[in-house]
Amino acid sequence: MSPEEFRAAGHEVVDWIADYLRDVHTLPVTPDVQPGALIDSLPASAPEHGEPMEAILKDFRDLIVPGLTHWNHPRFLAYFSISASGPGILGEMLAAGLNVNQLLWKTAPAATELEQVTLGWLRQWLGLPEDFFGLIHDTASTGTMHAILAARELAAPDIRHTGEFPSLTLYCSEHAHSSVDKGAMALGVGLDNIRHVPSDSEFRMQPDILDAMIREDLTRGKKPFCIIATVGTTSTASIDPIRPIAEVAKRHGLWLHVDAAYGGTAAILEEHRHILDGASLADSLVVNPHKWLFTPVDISVLYTRRPDVMKQAVSLTDAPPYLQADSKNRAVNLSDYSLALGRRFRSLKLWFVLRSFGRQGVAEVLRRHIHSAQTIATEIAAHPDFEIAAPVLFSLVCFRYRGSDEQNRRLLEQLNESGEALLSSTTLHGRLVLRMAIGNIETTIEDVRQVWALIQKLSEELRRDAR
Amino acid sequence: MSPEEFRAAGHEVVDWIADYLRDVHTLPVTPDVQPGALIDSLPASAPEHGEPMEAILKDFRDLIVPGLTHWNHPRFLAYFSISASGPGILGEMLAAGLNVNQLLWKTAPAATELEQVTLGWLRQWLGLPEDFFGLIHDTASTGTMHAILAARELAAPDIRHTGEFPSLTLYCSEHAHSSVDKGAMALGVGLDNIRHVPSDSEFRMQPDILDAMIREDLTRGKKPFCIIATVGTTSTASIDPIRPIAEVAKRHGLWLHVDAAYGGTAAILEEHRHILDGASLADSLVVNPHKWLFTPVDISVLYTRRPDVMKQAVSLTDAPPYLQADSKNRAVNLSDYSLALGRRFRSLKLWFVLRSFGRQGVAEVLRRHIHSAQTIATEIAAHPDFEIAAPVLFSLVCFRYRGSDEQNRRLLEQLNESGEALLSSTTLHGRLVLRMAIGNIETTIEDVRQVWALIQKLSEELRRDAR
Repeated sequence: MSPEEFRAAGHEVVDWIADYLRDVHTLPVTPDVQPGALIDSLPASAPEHGEPMEAILKDFRDLIVPGLTHWNHPRFLAYFSISASGPGILGEMLAAGLNVNQLLWKTAPAATELEQVTLGWLRQWLGLPEDFFGLIHDTASTGTMHAILAARELAAPDIRHTGEFPSLTLYCSEHAHSSVDKGAMALGVGLDNIRHVPSDSEFRMQPDILDAMIREDLTRGKKPFCIIATVGTTSTASIDPIRPIAEVAKRHGLWLHVDAAYGGTAAILEEHRHILDGASLADSLVVNPHKWLFTPVDISVLYTRRPDVMKQAVSLTDAPPYLQADSKNRAVNLSDYSLALGRRFRSLKLWFVLRSFGRQGVAEVLRRHIHSAQTIATEIAAHPDFEIAAPVLFSLVCFRYRGSDEQNRRLLEQLNESGEALLSSTTLHGRLVLRMAIGNIETTIEDVRQVWALIQKLSEELRRDAR
Repeated sequence: MSPEEFRAAGHEVVDWIADYLRDVHTLPVTPDVQPGALIDSLPASAPEHGEPMEAILKDFRDLIVPGLTHWNHPRFLAYFSISASGPGILGEMLAAGLNVNQLLWKTAPAATELEQVTLGWLRQWLGLPEDFFGLIHDTASTGTMHAILAARELAAPDIRHTGEFPSLTLYCSEHAHSSVDKGAMALGVGLDNIRHVPSDSEFRMQPDILDAMIREDLTRGKKPFCIIATVGTTSTASIDPIRPIAEVAKRHGLWLHVDAAYGGTAAILEEHRHILDGASLADSLVVNPHKWLFTPVDISVLYTRRPDVMKQAVSLTDAPPYLQADSKNRAVNLSDYSLALGRRFRSLKLWFVLRSFGRQGVAEVLRRHIHSAQTIATEIAAHPDFEIAAPVLFSLVCFRYRGSDEQNRRLLEQLNESGEALLSSTTLHGRLVLRMAIGNIETTIEDVRQVWALIQKLSEELRRDAR
């Protein structure tokens, strides 16, 4: 494909994306497709000879798009909602065209430094201390695993050489993300050595119980090494109290990692800054611009106060020749701090977003989301047939129909199958709870009201059916 | 940014990318910048209020681009060269606009199935057996780490629960990529338990020595569990003999992983199909479309014959509610097979590349690269002042000036500082060797000849200086 052919097709693609962004709200959020439908509609083998771009784009429009769940839809309210904002898409387009690989400073000087600059900017917005060193990973799963690896290195550096494990134990809330368990398990901690600290009535880790569990493990000859606190848990967006947890960590000399993948962004708002109170005492913290900061997937930021430990945790005794870097001052090789060697130019899209929105622009959208959540939660709470199932934090509303789990499940299924909206669910105190996660940049209070009206309508049908 | 504002800026960005692809060959491959230059040129904080896109794009052009090493430059011949082809960029643009997250089948049905379809197509091109299950990771580092994790699961499934390690040992060639050591170390194997099998005069792992090392470890009470063979090593592109290594693996019941990140793509050519001879006996294999298959970073494919083991290796005892999937037939949740939960829509760009080029189109470029390497290697070998330092495999030429390491280092520095080309180096038999890695889609024999002429010119200056 010549540059001119790319130009022509590129303009067509831009027009398609612009139309998509304009019209996505008119599409069903979820497709009405059966598993295997796309597989059956595509050839069993790749073509022997090249095909015209027109044919590929046609199949993209006719076969791929109708089979997608639209995460960019303003009534996508499941999991945590995300947004590909215009500036973020533009940054991603340019990164694809440049195709640099930041494995060493010298292989992509400006990309390496833009990562440092943008993560410094974001760090200031979040009110984190200046000595927090930032690094971009693909997802929070990866970032958190690296944090646990650094914690392991600090507690038991011999593992890296001998593979002989003391009986390391790790602590997180029972509401921590599953990636904590997965990461620790991969690193050899063992699921039996992961302690899920009970949470209080508002789904927050209880520091006194945490402390007691650590003490008990110590008397049993275990070696506590790491605590993971969460700011914005997956089920309810609950906030573990970082400061008292940090005191426990300090008392016992443990690494404290804060998983603020979703919630951390809210610290950009002065009135929410308190959610990260105590985070300056943490050893590491992860926050995902691809969640609530309008940047296309994937970009997850890991900050650490201990880059030296992180570097040591992933370093080999002898660096191979192709990795021996210049010792030039200020030339940081970011791959020294991660298991993956190749590094895509992910900071570009974040730079576009931070500059295009500015802090006030971001704050305005976050406030709109939070206000929408509070408004609709008030209406839900006032409805005799519904109840709020968890404190409404950030822009997540957990609620349920006052009926059986089966009725709530049917309500959710009917809502989602309508294509009008997508919600997800969780289990709290043993009961099925619906989650309405507001977070897409285009989502307005009108979208949320429309969904709530549909939920009420479906619930009335449910009640009629039950009679 | 409204859809119409995105449309306008998007067209501008497409024009910029098209101009860049057309003109990149006129830019210096590497920038003449000092570390910290970009950091110093950007504001210390992000803006309080949003800035116009025009200003951001201007800074991108004026500050970022001049500070980049151009991986898309036809005379970028360092590391392994890569290409963002037009079709690949278009696919990436659309993926950014859609911004779907494939964590479960139902969150992105067509994206999930397109990953299965494209990896099936690629599997056929590579001549791998039908029961190889494919999954996209960001880099080969991550894919290989997952392969080692699956090997660990098969050999010592208790680790996942107890964290108690038998003395596991892993085997790879002394020329294996550093990510093998990094991954194994992270997973708790311990560097002391990684055996680097000596290679023969052509830098290939020696299966009889491998077998002897395993036997010796067994007598010492160690538990061998995994062998990594490489097709296209980083230093010389050498090819470990997979079939006899697979026989050793089978004899001792070990997991065999093949790292074909760079070289594997050559198996698309019938005359190179033999490089993967025996790969059908492997348990897993990694190949990177973002290396020699013209797809923008990042996309690395991990195939495994044992998806059941891979799934078990990353699974928790109890899946949390938000991960409980439909049991619908044919609905595969790809995140069940990886540590990371979030999954970007990476298959789209590969689908664009495979269809736009077709098998013959890809083969034509690969043959051109291989022919260029052979041609220039013949000329280098014929030059009295130069020597070929390793067999010329695929499209990599390892050579050196017949002089001291210091002279070769100066030659490389002068070449790279000229901005005319970028080469990298390695150490073979204790001597510094230059690497010319041909792999960018735009690289022609004329580019390679031009670089070789410059190398000769610089070497003559070196010789004059030495007198």
